[in-house]
Amino acid sequence: MSMNRLIDRIVELKNPTVAGLDPKLGYVPNYIKEAAFEKYGYTLKGAAKALLEFNKGLIDALCEVVPAIKPQCAYYEMYGPAGVKTLYKTMEYAKEKGMLIITDGKRNDIGTTMEAYSIGHLGLTDVNGKQLSAFGGDMLTVNGYLGTDGIKPLLKVCDELDKGIFVLVKTSNPSSGELQDRLIDGKPVYEIMGEMCEKWGAESVCDPYGFSNVGAVVGATYPEQLKALREKMPHTFFLVPGYGAQGGGAEDVRHAFNKDGIGAIINSSRGIMCAYQKRGFEEKDYAQAAYLEAIRMRDDIQGVL
Amino acid sequence: MSMNRLIDRIVELKNPTVAGLDPKLGYVPNYIKEAAFEKYGYTLKGAAKALLEFNKGLIDALCEVVPAIKPQCAYYEMYGPAGVKTLYKTMEYAKEKGMLIITDGKRNDIGTTMEAYSIGHLGLTDVNGKQLSAFGGDMLTVNGYLGTDGIKPLLKVCDELDKGIFVLVKTSNPSSGELQDRLIDGKPVYEIMGEMCEKWGAESVCDPYGFSNVGAVVGATYPEQLKALREKMPHTFFLVPGYGAQGGGAEDVRHAFNKDGIGAIINSSRGIMCAYQKRGFEEKDYAQAAYLEAIRMRDDIQGVL
Repeated sequence: MSMNRLIDRIVELKNPTVAGLDPKLGYVPNYIKEAAFEKYGYTLKGAAKALLEFNKGLIDALCEVVPAIKPQCAYYEMYGPAGVKTLYKTMEYAKEKGMLIITDGKRNDIGTTMEAYSIGHLGLTDVNGKQLSAFGGDMLTVNGYLGTDGIKPLLKVCDELDKGIFVLVKTSNPSSGELQDRLIDGKPVYEIMGEMCEKWGAESVCDPYGFSNVGAVVGATYPEQLKALREKMPHTFFLVPGYGAQGGGAEDVRHAFNKDGIGAIINSSRGIMCAYQKRGFEEKDYAQAAYLEAIRMRDDIQGVL
Repeated sequence: MSMNRLIDRIVELKNPTVAGLDPKLGYVPNYIKEAAFEKYGYTLKGAAKALLEFNKGLIDALCEVVPAIKPQCAYYEMYGPAGVKTLYKTMEYAKEKGMLIITDGKRNDIGTTMEAYSIGHLGLTDVNGKQLSAFGGDMLTVNGYLGTDGIKPLLKVCDELDKGIFVLVKTSNPSSGELQDRLIDGKPVYEIMGEMCEKWGAESVCDPYGFSNVGAVVGATYPEQLKALREKMPHTFFLVPGYGAQGGGAEDVRHAFNKDGIGAIINSSRGIMCAYQKRGFEEKDYAQAAYLEAIRMRDDIQGVL
């Protein structure tokens, strides 16, 4: 079961965190950009190549201390097909280095189309009888607004290929409450979505950790809701954004974990990618700065568990 | 204003329909597949090249009668980076032929990330001061579960570059009601989402049609809700899936239009792409069959307006 693959690695590294790879050109050291632009010009391809080099350096520095990366599709799609190729190459490189991949795409659609997303991001694509991996992520973030038949095709792939999903439940942004906090029969929408996650995952709950293949995204910026959801969703593993740059701290994310100190993976994107800029490192030491920030974050969170 | 660009073209062609380009290998004539596989092998690239040829034939046949295409990202991502390149090339080709592009990606994320999606799919990407088009769609489908700050970055791009969005309100799939039909203060969730669309679009409503840049996705498979939403959302243009293969007919979609016969664009995907298979045409006449089905669909819908 996929959550077990992730949790095993978290336990092994004693580190319940994930490095969000949401690279912007502004984060990339000049020497990397200059080399790429010299070779490919000021083009989308040049930008995409620079991002790939930047990511590889981060992966090299993080792969032995951080269990997973979470590339955010938007920052790759922004550079067109060349950017999407960098997404693929980043994932391929991280896998080679033993990291798990949480593809942050928040995909959603009706059943037949969701099947295509499931195959593309987690499964195998059939080409004349050959089974090929299109992107090959381990887990995918999804949006459950369309209900069960937008989720079922994912469950099939998760079951067959040992993969997982994270459904948006309570997001970390300021306006998340506009819909998510509204009450249905006295319960907020995010709680209804949380109940659906427990239902969708019911058949894949497994030992030794007791979590299913269906995880949930719950923001660190709403610690009270995080605490309530942890209690109401005992079999749902949490992906928690909002630590660091968005304002959440270790005390805020503590409630995402159960009494065994398991139950969540905490994301940091800018905190890790831009560590060298924030801490006054030289550009060439950007990966070392990211490593030190990853260690600091690990210890910060381990300190409250 | 982007909805005007779309509506102008609908009025010009007297055709409120859009061709959904959601190609599967099973839809592609053998002679196209064989040529691609001979050149590129049974690879993702071979499959992607076959889909591109198939799409180009459809676009050639449809461009003078159908105002827009709606490529569904999932069916391209299924073939990895090569598939995404086919998405790009399909869009580029359709634009050259004068068609508008509704990118069906149902993207959604928090503000800063949604900005990246907005730039990638509708806007211009900055590479060292050069403004480059990554995908260059005219409109994008989005999911509003995250609330206003997941929509705002799109409005900025729509305003500056004359583009539009379609927010999921009531989707066409069987389980759409699990969340969307639940009541909040006596109103179904889809109606709350509809009210948000009217609010998000309020500043971009414009003459001569009276619609904003913020459209809504409302399925043909729920005609009663479609009718109610048309009344409650007078400034919101509708993208209506579910006609044809999913079961919706002309009588079902009639209510998506206002008294002037304007207000919606009706999608058909499989009905058009697979017309040759359903009507017993030879493979080489697949584009001609698609053309005839597009004309039949146009006349079917015009007949009830």
